Amino acid sequence: MISIPGFQLSSVFSGVKKSRNKDLALIFSDVPAKAAAVFTTNVVKAAPVILGQERIKQGLCQAIVINSGIANAFTGTSGYQNAVQTTKDISASLGIDAELIIPSSTGLIGGPLPVSKIKKAIPNLISKLGPGGVEEVAKAIMTTDKFPKFAVRKIKIGKKEGTIAAIGKGAGMICPNMATMLCFIITDININKTTLKKALVNSVDNSFNKIIVDGDTSTNDSVIILSNGVLGNNEITLKSTHYSRFENILTDLNTEIAELIVKDGEGATKVVKIDVQGARTVKEAEKIARTIGNSQLVKTAFFGEDPNWGRILAAAGRAGVMFNPNKVEMFFNDKRVIKNGAQFQAESKFASVFKKPKFTVTIKLKEGNASSYVITSDLSHEYVSVNSEYRT
Amino acid sequence: MISIPGFQLSSVFSGVKKSRNKDLALIFSDVPAKAAAVFTTNVVKAAPVILGQERIKQGLCQAIVINSGIANAFTGTSGYQNAVQTTKDISASLGIDAELIIPSSTGLIGGPLPVSKIKKAIPNLISKLGPGGVEEVAKAIMTTDKFPKFAVRKIKIGKKEGTIAAIGKGAGMICPNMATMLCFIITDININKTTLKKALVNSVDNSFNKIIVDGDTSTNDSVIILSNGVLGNNEITLKSTHYSRFENILTDLNTEIAELIVKDGEGATKVVKIDVQGARTVKEAEKIARTIGNSQLVKTAFFGEDPNWGRILAAAGRAGVMFNPNKVEMFFNDKRVIKNGAQFQAESKFASVFKKPKFTVTIKLKEGNASSYVITSDLSHEYVSVNSEYRT
Repeated sequence: MISIPGFQLSSVFSGVKKSRNKDLALIFSDVPAKAAAVFTTNVVKAAPVILGQERIKQGLCQAIVINSGIANAFTGTSGYQNAVQTTKDISASLGIDAELIIPSSTGLIGGPLPVSKIKKAIPNLISKLGPGGVEEVAKAIMTTDKFPKFAVRKIKIGKKEGTIAAIGKGAGMICPNMATMLCFIITDININKTTLKKALVNSVDNSFNKIIVDGDTSTNDSVIILSNGVLGNNEITLKSTHYSRFENILTDLNTEIAELIVKDGEGATKVVKIDVQGARTVKEAEKIARTIGNSQLVKTAFFGEDPNWGRILAAAGRAGVMFNPNKVEMFFNDKRVIKNGAQFQAESKFASVFKKPKFTVTIKLKEGNASSYVITSDLSHEYVSVNSEYRT
Repeated sequence: MISIPGFQLSSVFSGVKKSRNKDLALIFSDVPAKAAAVFTTNVVKAAPVILGQERIKQGLCQAIVINSGIANAFTGTSGYQNAVQTTKDISASLGIDAELIIPSSTGLIGGPLPVSKIKKAIPNLISKLGPGGVEEVAKAIMTTDKFPKFAVRKIKIGKKEGTIAAIGKGAGMICPNMATMLCFIITDININKTTLKKALVNSVDNSFNKIIVDGDTSTNDSVIILSNGVLGNNEITLKSTHYSRFENILTDLNTEIAELIVKDGEGATKVVKIDVQGARTVKEAEKIARTIGNSQLVKTAFFGEDPNWGRILAAAGRAGVMFNPNKVEMFFNDKRVIKNGAQFQAESKFASVFKKPKFTVTIKLKEGNASSYVITSDLSHEYVSVNSEYRT
């Protein structure tokens, strides 16, 4: 059983999901935890995101309440009031300040949050609080997800051993209809507030921000971390020897969740890393990797197992970055594909790489020393089916 | 029969296309014509584009030779030499300077241009030159196109009547494999060189640059205009009373070709205009229109005839433009969908619009007075099939 000292979790069915699967979850820290979050950059934000952005400012949070089935997005001012009301209902039962509670929602958009159903379920939800329950919470926040997503890491801090666990959801980097990529990270490690925020932002940049399923960004995307300090270690600051290890392990944890999301991407049959090397700047490398990873033509070629390097190079060429195509080299895994802007060897020498479920496309620009990458999926018939037929 | 005074056209089968359909075309002006062009912005450019960019600088051109079946892209320095060689072969037979000939290619990438087959076909190609032949040339430059694309307009210039004809190709705003959107425009109207360039650039911005099938930009995209002045009108300049009419008619002509390309888009079943109004600047309106028109989730919803306004608004929200979602209004044709950021009426009141083969999504931001639009298509199973199975 995964257990994080000082945290209690629970999950129930409140009556929202037609499937009658669990649809309401609570993450509770015995003491107010230091907290940081990264929310969607979409200017159209769901009500719980707007409320979460306000409450996270104090850097403290003691509980996260998550409902699935209804996104509480595009619901106007009443949607915001409903989000506030849910946290008030929880706060009354838990006996903690509502300002220490952050709500999170995922599911169908447009409809009102079923506040009365949630209110009725709260006593049951709270009575079930206890250690463990990570996998159950991961299941309760699923929407189009095919499997629950969670991961855990241990970190030695001096003579003590801390725990970090992450519970995520998402399939298709986002389907605004079913709203979103969510990730809740909880740890007993004692870490300074601003340091926690920096570690979270850096780790999200190097994990969730590297994945592309369809290039759409949801109104509800949220990553929230709580650190309750129950481990009792000396507070980690930016200057601590432990800091870089903490950030690296957090990135590694989030990368595991991110890769599970790509794997569960709607209709995805391939997971492909697009690795751009030898750019003048990291930003330019990222622009090229992202343009390739978002190209419909490249993604359908992945689906068709067609080693069509021309589409990849053409996508690179329209990324808005200057480079000399005659210097470019390309590899599929370790197989050389192009050299000096032309095909290096017969297609039969590198075609087999595209048959694999997971592979890497490496592009060497030879313009500088910067590099970046993205993780993308293919574009399949099932993607079209899932997203064209979902509501019909 | 469409005939443009002072121009002769011809088309033949040179032996490149496996279908044995015509694959080589020539557009010839009896006198050197003033010329302007817009080429792909992709930094990876096919050999004929690189050569065309050099030769168009003089603002004069007398012949365009177009081959289909092989794109002469990603072919290194020998590809460039092959493009030069073809124009030399034509120049010898026509008795005109090779510098006055621009080559254009579309078709499979990576393979060498079959210069000897083309050379053998040149006598036949030249012997067939004559007035008319617009539709035949349009057929000869087809690759994945399902139908030939051409259009013609007449313009009164004082007491004279000029003609502008356009011959285009493209399906799927581009499939770099089969390379490209091409358009060749020929007119007998006498117009000043820099004025011709300005009219072309403006008209392309308002026609071809408004269409999106899959957001990919090819290595071969080219729009070339020749004006031979045979009409004998006073040269049109930017100050002429005739100028704005010339530009408008050219835009209208190019829009007809652009819409034919969207209609022929790989697997497209819908043609949708995304009209963004009330933005602070035209650039912001365009960014939003383009992000919506490129969204895979929006395009699959169009295919599924799912009036999913949440996906459209969420795509608008990630365009990188600030706006207040609570002020937004949305219409499907004339049906109001959202007002003040929430659904205005029952879905049954506006759902039927998505059943039509052609409709408009209008978004009113109420942030300012600027507007812009794009024309996009849906993302269908056939798109995935065409692009994943093409080479297999």
